[in-house]
Amino acid sequence: MNRNESARFPRSAPAPPSRRTIRIGLIGVGTVGTGTIRVLVEHRRELERRLGCRLELKKICSRSIHRKDISWIGQPVETTADWKQVVRDPEVDIVVELVGEPKTALAIARAALDAHKHLVTANKQLVAEHGLELVEHAAAARVSLGIEACVAGGMPILHAIREGLSGEHFRAVYGILNGTTNYILTEMEQRCCSFREALREAQAAGYAEPDPTMDVEGYDARYKIAILAMISFGQAVEVGEIPVEGITRISQIDFAYAHQLRRTIRLIATARRSSGGRLEAFVRPMMIPADGPFAGIHGATNGVLLVGNKGGNTLITGRGAGGEPTGVAVLSDVVEIAREMVRSQASLARRPDRRRPQAGTSVLGYAHWHRAKLAPSGESVIRTYLRLVVRDRPGILARVSGIFARHHINIDSVLQEPNHPKRRLPFVMTLEPGREKHVAQAVAEIARLPFLAEPPLTMPLAELP
Amino acid sequence: MNRNESARFPRSAPAPPSRRTIRIGLIGVGTVGTGTIRVLVEHRRELERRLGCRLELKKICSRSIHRKDISWIGQPVETTADWKQVVRDPEVDIVVELVGEPKTALAIARAALDAHKHLVTANKQLVAEHGLELVEHAAAARVSLGIEACVAGGMPILHAIREGLSGEHFRAVYGILNGTTNYILTEMEQRCCSFREALREAQAAGYAEPDPTMDVEGYDARYKIAILAMISFGQAVEVGEIPVEGITRISQIDFAYAHQLRRTIRLIATARRSSGGRLEAFVRPMMIPADGPFAGIHGATNGVLLVGNKGGNTLITGRGAGGEPTGVAVLSDVVEIAREMVRSQASLARRPDRRRPQAGTSVLGYAHWHRAKLAPSGESVIRTYLRLVVRDRPGILARVSGIFARHHINIDSVLQEPNHPKRRLPFVMTLEPGREKHVAQAVAEIARLPFLAEPPLTMPLAELP
Repeated sequence: MNRNESARFPRSAPAPPSRRTIRIGLIGVGTVGTGTIRVLVEHRRELERRLGCRLELKKICSRSIHRKDISWIGQPVETTADWKQVVRDPEVDIVVELVGEPKTALAIARAALDAHKHLVTANKQLVAEHGLELVEHAAAARVSLGIEACVAGGMPILHAIREGLSGEHFRAVYGILNGTTNYILTEMEQRCCSFREALREAQAAGYAEPDPTMDVEGYDARYKIAILAMISFGQAVEVGEIPVEGITRISQIDFAYAHQLRRTIRLIATARRSSGGRLEAFVRPMMIPADGPFAGIHGATNGVLLVGNKGGNTLITGRGAGGEPTGVAVLSDVVEIAREMVRSQASLARRPDRRRPQAGTSVLGYAHWHRAKLAPSGESVIRTYLRLVVRDRPGILARVSGIFARHHINIDSVLQEPNHPKRRLPFVMTLEPGREKHVAQAVAEIARLPFLAEPPLTMPLAELP
Repeated sequence: MNRNESARFPRSAPAPPSRRTIRIGLIGVGTVGTGTIRVLVEHRRELERRLGCRLELKKICSRSIHRKDISWIGQPVETTADWKQVVRDPEVDIVVELVGEPKTALAIARAALDAHKHLVTANKQLVAEHGLELVEHAAAARVSLGIEACVAGGMPILHAIREGLSGEHFRAVYGILNGTTNYILTEMEQRCCSFREALREAQAAGYAEPDPTMDVEGYDARYKIAILAMISFGQAVEVGEIPVEGITRISQIDFAYAHQLRRTIRLIATARRSSGGRLEAFVRPMMIPADGPFAGIHGATNGVLLVGNKGGNTLITGRGAGGEPTGVAVLSDVVEIAREMVRSQASLARRPDRRRPQAGTSVLGYAHWHRAKLAPSGESVIRTYLRLVVRDRPGILARVSGIFARHHINIDSVLQEPNHPKRRLPFVMTLEPGREKHVAQAVAEIARLPFLAEPPLTMPLAELP
């Protein structure tokens, strides 16, 4: 910069450092809670330089706080085993809710908003199921809501949608949102092992829970796509209405055929505007091109592809879980809220009612929210991968292809690898584009054929944009 | 949501839709200006739903406005050929500066901030060279500054750093920030053509200017990494101090050797904290692993890899240029600023001095800025690719390896493909890790050897994290 030129505006003018301290009350000291505290302790100086004010961890709460060693925090902090003590503390500006249990999380969230505290949560189930309530409650209480940590912990995906691309009109959001299933699928892909083996490995490596249902059945990804749909389209959907299909039935043979088709398999969560303008959302395994962006996402990494109307495709990949990456997301929300508080500081000082710290506006990116009814599923036109396992006998191909012919569905290719036992013979077809529900009807008919050794498996042959 | 439960807070409370209209004055109706207007016209309803207020394009300015057909805008808009008319209009809240010429852009920026208008600019040179002045000026004027469109048009990278990852402490930022050079390099890689051929193709395809200097010599990427360094570390660097090296000397033979080494070549812009804590920044072609994230970025696509202290690596890829993607970025800043205006609306109404629309705080993500002196270059320890083109004669290897031995630099491998003319024989070495400046000294000595047919070319063999 040319110093002479820069001298033409008052050099002393930059906003004076605020004397204000913003105080955090944190509830839940598990993996994410500990990670959040650790990140706060280590990054505090940098964060305070961003904010221009002090950031203090005033109070932490855990039911088992008396058994926890928190000396590593290295600074005085009040502790309590009763979360109400945090929410009621008049000095706490921001309540950070990190308990896993959804009912308690909901009670904390409501109490915090009732008390006009800004709220940051990492609880995806809470936000997916009660997001619109929380948005309306926060707007009424004129406080902010931070939910970045609910989806893809270490990735700044929700802020990217809400702020970085707030000029965009989204067409679709696709995500690999569950690290456990992606780890299992890439293990199956790379080491040619079975689902069971890959799951055991994921459990041994700490990527899967002893009870893996939430992950492998797709429910975790479903919470996340419900939140992504909300943030991308300003529409709150009913989580339970989103069709979900897990990965437990994917077998090694499917990867072998995927390979022949120059594809691979990933569990993809989708939210998009259908041709009729309504929202479509679902979670299911898909066979995707081997040279596309999602095929390159390996192991526990997460990825989100945003399809914009004018800005094209944006892909974000990064760490989806873990205490410290999630802690970064929690603190990013804390910093954002603190920034807004500093921004409205001047007016604050003049306001007698300190319980109402700022004017709330577009909570989570929209001033006006819709409650969305999802488009009926099955209306999309897709290409389909169908894998049957049959007890071999003459006439199978004739029966199966006859059923498709009757449903006016064209068979694109038939694949059958040699050297399989006759009693459990895998047998694959790819179908030309057809309306999903018509394909499903035909497959349901095939499922009733007597020679099937297990139910048919279908996957969309998706061309992700 | 359970409706009974949600009824416990006042349903009528969500912030009432604002009657306010926020007015935009846009200067510069070239590619980006036209793209911005087009996006605004098409997305206005969605943006207004986000904001809860009206967004109006009040005035547009172009020197050649009288020759432009703007009937497609489809709504009344004031026009002028004099940008001062925009800046002085008391009804304009946000000035959007999209003129390419840096001196005019600077004059507009200063006048807009002087007039207490919020400012959005897409001019990377302006921000890279005068960023700190603009930040201090905006803070003094208590207005906001939007610069998202300056780096990687369609990608929300600056907002991701400033908001989505504001809880992070960054270690490094790496970027493929110039679509032209990435297009040329991937053409050379995939079609085995020369730099000249690939450049001609890029020009024919509209990816390169008739005078491609700004792109192929790395200057465009240098502006962008200066801005990324600023936003990621809160430190303003002198653009001219950032070492830069273009891609004009990369030849097909380098790709052949890269292939042997399971690598490829990309022009990478780097900003990172050095081991001494100071900032390092540079732009140069690098040989990177063929299976790494940057190798997968083809054509005119841009990519940025953020390395966080706690959140791990986050990769964002997308469209880096084009009128409409850049327009999305411009409007994302407009929406962000408008959101803040709506937020502080209540206090605004009470404030008599309408020229000071809001309290400025951390402009561009930091409340406190440093002016950074870059770490001295050459201190990093790197592995090096060295390509010589020699007039073949006995003893060359002995001379070259003797020089490296004297500088205590170990040769890792020597590669020489057969079937090259003896008078221009390419000859490649990879060097074990050594301090960059020591390698440079040895290479400078080699450059003086009489049998060289052209100056030596070196590239770091970088292991991007």
